Amino acid sequence: MGYRTIRYETLKHFSEDLFALFGFNKKESSIITDVLLTADLYGIESHGIQRLARYYNDILKGVIRPKNKPKVVYETPISAVLDGCDGMGQLIGRQCMEMVISKAKQSGIGMAVVRNSNHYGIAGYYAKLACDQGLIGVSLTNSSAIMVPTFGRKASLGSNPIAICVPADPYPFFFDAATTVVTRGKLEVYNKNDEPLREGWTLDAQGNPSRNAGEVLDNIINKSGGGILPIGGGEEESGGHKGYGFAMICEIFTAILSLGETSNHTYVGLHAGICHGFAAIDPKLFGDPDQIFRHLSAYLEELRNSPKAENAERIYTHGEKEIEATALRMKEGIPVNDNTLLEMLNMCRNFNLSFKDYFGFEM
Amino acid sequence: MGYRTIRYETLKHFSEDLFALFGFNKKESSIITDVLLTADLYGIESHGIQRLARYYNDILKGVIRPKNKPKVVYETPISAVLDGCDGMGQLIGRQCMEMVISKAKQSGIGMAVVRNSNHYGIAGYYAKLACDQGLIGVSLTNSSAIMVPTFGRKASLGSNPIAICVPADPYPFFFDAATTVVTRGKLEVYNKNDEPLREGWTLDAQGNPSRNAGEVLDNIINKSGGGILPIGGGEEESGGHKGYGFAMICEIFTAILSLGETSNHTYVGLHAGICHGFAAIDPKLFGDPDQIFRHLSAYLEELRNSPKAENAERIYTHGEKEIEATALRMKEGIPVNDNTLLEMLNMCRNFNLSFKDYFGFEM
Repeated sequence: MGYRTIRYETLKHFSEDLFALFGFNKKESSIITDVLLTADLYGIESHGIQRLARYYNDILKGVIRPKNKPKVVYETPISAVLDGCDGMGQLIGRQCMEMVISKAKQSGIGMAVVRNSNHYGIAGYYAKLACDQGLIGVSLTNSSAIMVPTFGRKASLGSNPIAICVPADPYPFFFDAATTVVTRGKLEVYNKNDEPLREGWTLDAQGNPSRNAGEVLDNIINKSGGGILPIGGGEEESGGHKGYGFAMICEIFTAILSLGETSNHTYVGLHAGICHGFAAIDPKLFGDPDQIFRHLSAYLEELRNSPKAENAERIYTHGEKEIEATALRMKEGIPVNDNTLLEMLNMCRNFNLSFKDYFGFEM
Repeated sequence: MGYRTIRYETLKHFSEDLFALFGFNKKESSIITDVLLTADLYGIESHGIQRLARYYNDILKGVIRPKNKPKVVYETPISAVLDGCDGMGQLIGRQCMEMVISKAKQSGIGMAVVRNSNHYGIAGYYAKLACDQGLIGVSLTNSSAIMVPTFGRKASLGSNPIAICVPADPYPFFFDAATTVVTRGKLEVYNKNDEPLREGWTLDAQGNPSRNAGEVLDNIINKSGGGILPIGGGEEESGGHKGYGFAMICEIFTAILSLGETSNHTYVGLHAGICHGFAAIDPKLFGDPDQIFRHLSAYLEELRNSPKAENAERIYTHGEKEIEATALRMKEGIPVNDNTLLEMLNMCRNFNLSFKDYFGFEM
C-alpha cells in the first residue's frame, strides 16, 4: 500500500469542510477534526483521518446522529452522568472533559461518565485537555467487543483504553493504551500484509491460539467467537488475568457507572451504545502543584537517563514519541495511505467537491 | 519444603501476641495480624504470616518504628497527604483508608497519599475495606525497585500493585495485581526449586533476557542491574510499555503526589520511604447505587457464564479465587511452610514463649 504525505493544514481544511457537509456546524467540525488529526500527528493512523469514511457511514446509517446533543441526567458538584443520545463521540467527549475540568477547578476533582455515545477517537486527546490546564486528566472508553476474558472464547470486553496525562517538564506524562495486547488496527495491518500474527495475541473461535489475522477479524465482525487477548496474553502465568482486570476497570468506569452498555452489548442494530469515563484532578488537592510538577519531571528524566539494555538506543517516557511525531509531521506532513485518499476522492464526488483543489494532485 | 496446616485462630492468637511483644498495642497488633492473615486466607503466602520475621528484623534495625504515628501534612475535605514517619505500613494503610472512607461518605470521594511509610502487605486489603461499606475502594503502593523500564537494564520502578474493589453480588469485583509480569515471590519459588524462569519475565544485569532466578534476585538485592519486566514483557510488540505505564501511574498516585521517594530511591540506609495511595468513591456520585450494583453483578455473571476455551474449565471474575480460598482455609486451616515455622520457633525462644502451647506440636 502506498502513502502520500499531505500537509496538516490541507487535511484540516478538507476534514472541516467534510464534517460541515455531514451536518455539523463550524465549531463542531473543527473539534472533530482536531481529535482526528491529533491522532495522525501522534502517529496513530488507525484513529486519524482514515476514519472519515467510517464516521460518514455511521452517520448515513443513523448510528451517529449529528444533531443530537448529550443530556446531563445526573449531576453533583464533582460528578456527572450524561446520556450521549447517539451523538458524535468526539463532541460528547470534548463537552464532558470541559465539564470535569471546570468542576476540578472549582472543587478539586471532576468525574463524568457517559452512556449512548459513539466512537470518540483516541482516549488520550481528552486526558491531555486537562493536562494543558495544569490538571491530571483521565479518559477511558469501552468499544465493540474484541477482547476474550482469560479462559474464555467469546469476545466480551472492548479494546478498553485507559489514558492518563500528568503535567511535567519538558513534556507531560502521557499514557494512552488499549488493554488488549495489540489493537484491532494492528491485526488489520498483518492481514493486509498476509503475515502470521505473533503467538499470544489472538484466539480462534474455539478459544485456541490463532496466528491467522484474517480469520480472527472475520470472527470478531461476525461475533462467531475468539478475538484478541488482554495485555499479558492467554495465560495467568504471563499475567493475562491482569490485562483482563484492567479492561474490567475500564468497563466499570464507563459502562457500569453510567448504566450503559458493556462492550458485549454495544453495536446492536443501529445503536452503538459506547460509554466513556472522564476525570480531572487538581494537584492542589495534594499541596503545592509546582513541587509535584518538579518531582515528576525529575523522575521522568531519571528514567530516560537510566542505563540502557544492550542494543537499546533509548529509554522513553510515555508521551515522548507522540511529541516527536507531532513535531516531525507538522514540519514534513502526515502520511495518508492510498486507500484513505481514494475514500476521500469518493466523498468529494458525492459532495461535488474538487479533490484536486484541496490536495493539488489527482487520484 | 514441607507445609503444616494451622488453624486460622491459632495463627491469629500467635501473631497478635508477637506484635504486642514487638511494641504495638492490642488494637494495633490485631490490625496488623488481620492484614497478614487476610493474605494467607486469599492464598497469597508471600504477603502473609511468613513476613513476620521480616517485619521483626525491620523493627530491630529501626527501619520500622512501632511508636511513630503518621501525621497529616495537608488536608482538604476530599483529600489528604500524610507523612508515615517510618511507622508500620499496615497501621498507616488502615488509618488512611478509614480517612478516605469517611471523606467519601461526607463528600462523595476521598483520596489520600502517604510518604515515608513501610511495606503495608497486600494492596487489596485496603481497597476491600471501602467496598465492605458500599464504596469503590482503590489502593496502590510503590516498593523497592524491582521493575526495569522498557529498553532499560536498571530496576527503577517497584512491583507497584494497583488494587480496586467494587461492590457486586455474590462477590465484589476485587482486583489486586502487581504491574510486573510476575512477583518477586514467584522468582523465589523458582529459585528454591532450581527451575529455569519462563522467557519474558526477567533481565540480567546487562538488560538481556535471563531465565536464572537466583542471579536476578541477587542482582535486585545488590542493585547491580536487571530485574523483573513489566506486564507485557520486554518488548513494545507484546505491550511491555503498557505495563511500564501502569507502574508509572502507580508511582504518580503514591510517590509523586506525596512528594515521597519513587521506588528507585526507597530503602536507602535505614529508611524505607515507601509511598501509598488510597481512594474511596461513593457510587451515589453517579446516581442510584443499587442499580449500579445490579448492573455490575449482571455483567460479572455474564462473563463467568460465557463460552469457555477448549480445555478450560471455568472463567473467573476477579476476586472469586480469593473468596473460595478463604472459605477453604477457614475450614481446613492455612498451610504454613516449615521455614516459616522455624522462624516462629526462633521468635518464641527470643521472647520466652512456648511454641508447643500455641501450635500443639514441637518443631
